[in-house]
Amino acid sequence: MTDVPEDRVTGWWATGISDIAPDIIRMRGYPIEQLIGNASFIDMVWLLLRGELPSRAQSALLEAALVAAVDHGPQAPSIAAARMAATCGVGLNSAVATGVGLLGDVHGGAGQQCMALLAEARERTAAGATTAEAVEELLVELRRDRRYMPGFGHRFHRRDPRRDPLMSAVEKAIADGAADGDFLQIGLEIERRLSEGRDRPVPMNIDGATAIVYSELGFAPELGRGLFVLSRAVGILAHAWEERESGRRIKGPLPPPLLAPYLGPPDRDVPEAR
Amino acid sequence: MTDVPEDRVTGWWATGISDIAPDIIRMRGYPIEQLIGNASFIDMVWLLLRGELPSRAQSALLEAALVAAVDHGPQAPSIAAARMAATCGVGLNSAVATGVGLLGDVHGGAGQQCMALLAEARERTAAGATTAEAVEELLVELRRDRRYMPGFGHRFHRRDPRRDPLMSAVEKAIADGAADGDFLQIGLEIERRLSEGRDRPVPMNIDGATAIVYSELGFAPELGRGLFVLSRAVGILAHAWEERESGRRIKGPLPPPLLAPYLGPPDRDVPEAR
Amino acid sequence: MTDVPEDRVTGWWATGISDIAPDIIRMRGYPIEQLIGNASFIDMVWLLLRGELPSRAQSALLEAALVAAVDHGPQAPSIAAARMAATCGVGLNSAVATGVGLLGDVHGGAGQQCMALLAEARERTAAGATTAEAVEELLVELRRDRRYMPGFGHRFHRRDPRRDPLMSAVEKAIADGAADGDFLQIGLEIERRLSEGRDRPVPMNIDGATAIVYSELGFAPELGRGLFVLSRAVGILAHAWEERESGRRIKGPLPPPLLAPYLGPPDRDVPEAR
Amino acid sequence: MTDVPEDRVTGWWATGISDIAPDIIRMRGYPIEQLIGNASFIDMVWLLLRGELPSRAQSALLEAALVAAVDHGPQAPSIAAARMAATCGVGLNSAVATGVGLLGDVHGGAGQQCMALLAEARERTAAGATTAEAVEELLVELRRDRRYMPGFGHRFHRRDPRRDPLMSAVEKAIADGAADGDFLQIGLEIERRLSEGRDRPVPMNIDGATAIVYSELGFAPELGRGLFVLSRAVGILAHAWEERESGRRIKGPLPPPLLAPYLGPPDRDVPEAR
Repeated sequence: MTDVPEDRVTGWWATGISDIAPDIIRMRGYPIEQLIGNASFIDMVWLLLRGELPSRAQSALLEAALVAAVDHGPQAPSIAAARMAATCGVGLNSAVATGVGLLGDVHGGAGQQCMALLAEARERTAAGATTAEAVEELLVELRRDRRYMPGFGHRFHRRDPRRDPLMSAVEKAIADGAADGDFLQIGLEIERRLSEGRDRPVPMNIDGATAIVYSELGFAPELGRGLFVLSRAVGILAHAWEERESGRRIKGPLPPPLLAPYLGPPDRDVPEAR
Repeated sequence: MTDVPEDRVTGWWATGISDIAPDIIRMRGYPIEQLIGNASFIDMVWLLLRGELPSRAQSALLEAALVAAVDHGPQAPSIAAARMAATCGVGLNSAVATGVGLLGDVHGGAGQQCMALLAEARERTAAGATTAEAVEELLVELRRDRRYMPGFGHRFHRRDPRRDPLMSAVEKAIADGAADGDFLQIGLEIERRLSEGRDRPVPMNIDGATAIVYSELGFAPELGRGLFVLSRAVGILAHAWEERESGRRIKGPLPPPLLAPYLGPPDRDVPEAR
Repeated sequence: MTDVPEDRVTGWWATGISDIAPDIIRMRGYPIEQLIGNASFIDMVWLLLRGELPSRAQSALLEAALVAAVDHGPQAPSIAAARMAATCGVGLNSAVATGVGLLGDVHGGAGQQCMALLAEARERTAAGATTAEAVEELLVELRRDRRYMPGFGHRFHRRDPRRDPLMSAVEKAIADGAADGDFLQIGLEIERRLSEGRDRPVPMNIDGATAIVYSELGFAPELGRGLFVLSRAVGILAHAWEERESGRRIKGPLPPPLLAPYLGPPDRDVPEAR
Repeated sequence: MTDVPEDRVTGWWATGISDIAPDIIRMRGYPIEQLIGNASFIDMVWLLLRGELPSRAQSALLEAALVAAVDHGPQAPSIAAARMAATCGVGLNSAVATGVGLLGDVHGGAGQQCMALLAEARERTAAGATTAEAVEELLVELRRDRRYMPGFGHRFHRRDPRRDPLMSAVEKAIADGAADGDFLQIGLEIERRLSEGRDRPVPMNIDGATAIVYSELGFAPELGRGLFVLSRAVGILAHAWEERESGRRIKGPLPPPLLAPYLGPPDRDVPEAR
């Protein structure tokens, strides 16, 4: 039996986010009792993720994006799965976990991927390219790799109603000194180029619009997905709660007695010997 | 900076299941290199949950129950949610976690609840009551508390095709000395009583049938749910994989362009002041 | 092959929350383009869960509670599990799902249980009992059932620093007409009675304080847990992100090479026959 | 209100795995009542994932791999997280979901990645290269891309005790005609090359050994992760159950009263204006 320095073990769990000790709770150094009442929920999101409190203008822009993405209805698999979970005898926490878990690379990750591509174009303009040149190069590369541009185009919406108010919010933030507009220019140029010569334009969707917001505010691409999770968690919770209030039990995707058809091998006997 | 005894910290994570050290892996004391090839997968389930290797007869009865419950098709919310997850850009592990997470008190917990009630009746027979008396008291209490008997009755099946082979497996285990039949008698009496005087009988379903099996084998009720999770994980994985192979992206519950109807407040404007 | 009315199937997924159609997104009837910029994130939480926009005073009180509970450090299993998940090669959405999933009956459900008990006492005062009588009866019943009062007492804090600012926020809301103070009185009486005659008082903890807030605002007990999930999701995300930025891979609970000790059966051979 | 063909909607959920109708449950065409008692649990895994029943020799080799990977103790984050979940007031299903969810690209995905690389080398030998040439090219490419070879080397074990019995099982399967040995040869060559000229060899670990097994049996790489999930779910359940039996509540990573140290900004006041 040997002794180990206590900090050897506790240090494995060290953090720069919260300072917890008897009768003390501080977030990034700020006492929680000062934050309650003074900081908004959005301020707390920023403080915990970035380490400092945001300016009012930064907080307002972040809030616009988080408000915009709270819900898009039960045809989204994340919402549908959370609704089904809520009927299976698990807590609302498990229902939210179910929904949030589905916001993967394809369902919730388009914003993250869009941010990564916007950042690539931004590196090109920082190195001297014009916005038009940077976007041209980006789109050529995507086409070459047979990849599509995430964050643009929508199955239902010809023009996503969240696009315009979010772009206005970015412009307001630029006027207030909370953003410099580089990512906005790149995003608008991508939208213009993708729609060029098409009957049906390929407008920015919620992933693209929030990707511009989060990029302007200096968030890392991976946090694009993280912020979407925080926002959509509201809709997931509301839908799970609506289902819970209905009292329905074990809700499947099809209303009973409809059954999923079987398309596999026909009826057969288990062989005697193998 | 103080020192703490190493076992103070590592002891917090002590276990009686697996003994892991450099070049050593033992399960409940048995070297893994002896188990591979000699123990079946079912033996390992038993060994890890119960501490000892099962007899052949115990293993065979457990296997029958775990085989019976692997799948019940995509109308089950656990399967449907896992299929949707598989189209959202998460790994198969996340898809399985999604499905398994839905096996809660209502969807997967009926077996656990049935086992708890079988155990109550068993306590009565152990205290001298006949099986008929014990079941009578149980059903009276359930009726008084307006509770239904979990594990009996089915939405689709008039007679669940898994019932008879599982009851035969229990009888075989009794003949082989791996079970004593007390829970079987109680379960059959419940089934008889619930169906008495009804046009459509209320047969044992998979939760009831496996509850008898697991109770006969001495598992705690809570493990009834745990074992169901291991079994249904096979179907969940297979359905997630079928969806992945299809290449579908972001599969919701309704085939596009069908949309969920909205039944809430009508279109209205956000008020100027609140 | 039969036809079914479309609404038979789509109706299974009907909702009163969001109205989604081509180029239209409305939440509880309000166009999303009006909500962005005008409604706060907290307003959206209220709107989706309750159906109407809150007053400014209601929104401010809800915000205080959601700010207060964002994080309590990595010794909480929800945070620790999310940090470990973030090192295992899953997206931030999966890390958040992991942490949120742990906010069950014991870890995150104390607020929900406290709200249910506050509501019981409130029914008694509504029926004519004084606050003191209602609380007395509640505590007698809990003692009789050998249950403890959830939401009071803390392992670390003698006086939780979040208690006072949250109680002040409730008082402000009462002054602003957003709450009537009945639940506050009950909560304070419980705190007084639990601490009576003890050297170390049993103060309200975050679950108890937020239970009073949510009860005053008219939320159902089950949503107490749901709101805690939304709040703590911020801390879970921040901790997962801190771990991701560290670049650590497969972080277990103990710093390598520390190993969990084994306390099970000693080394033994797999028997030849069973 | 229009009508839609029923198969339009139910067809969205069609499957080739299970045929469920009143009083009928068939898996890949086989009646469940014939499978119970005749098919082993491993046979069911194969049947659901592959569409046909395996030969005895195929089933035996798959069983060896699934037995080998059931557990590796509580220092694995998947096990630790499941143990913590079990103390938080969620069902065993949620605890298993928590653990399984952590088997991501890094923790559980090494087997999948190893299989993908084995398949690349196998394509080269199929195109005429010798095993030595194919492995040489593979290792050169990995080195060029600064990637490491997944499935080889271990933090604790100099020689993983699961390696030899699994390689023996593959050789037995080759003798029984259930495998042709191509992937075994490639895997052994990789092991030989990685260890060449090193004091401490880089032996195959469980991910590498099972990758060879699953590749020999014809599983797709992604199913390597899926099969690992099924296997490790046993250990996850057993550890969650051990924790549940202990009665511990809200188990964090550190034994109380140890606290995670805080390394962030020092104590500071929230600024008056921002």
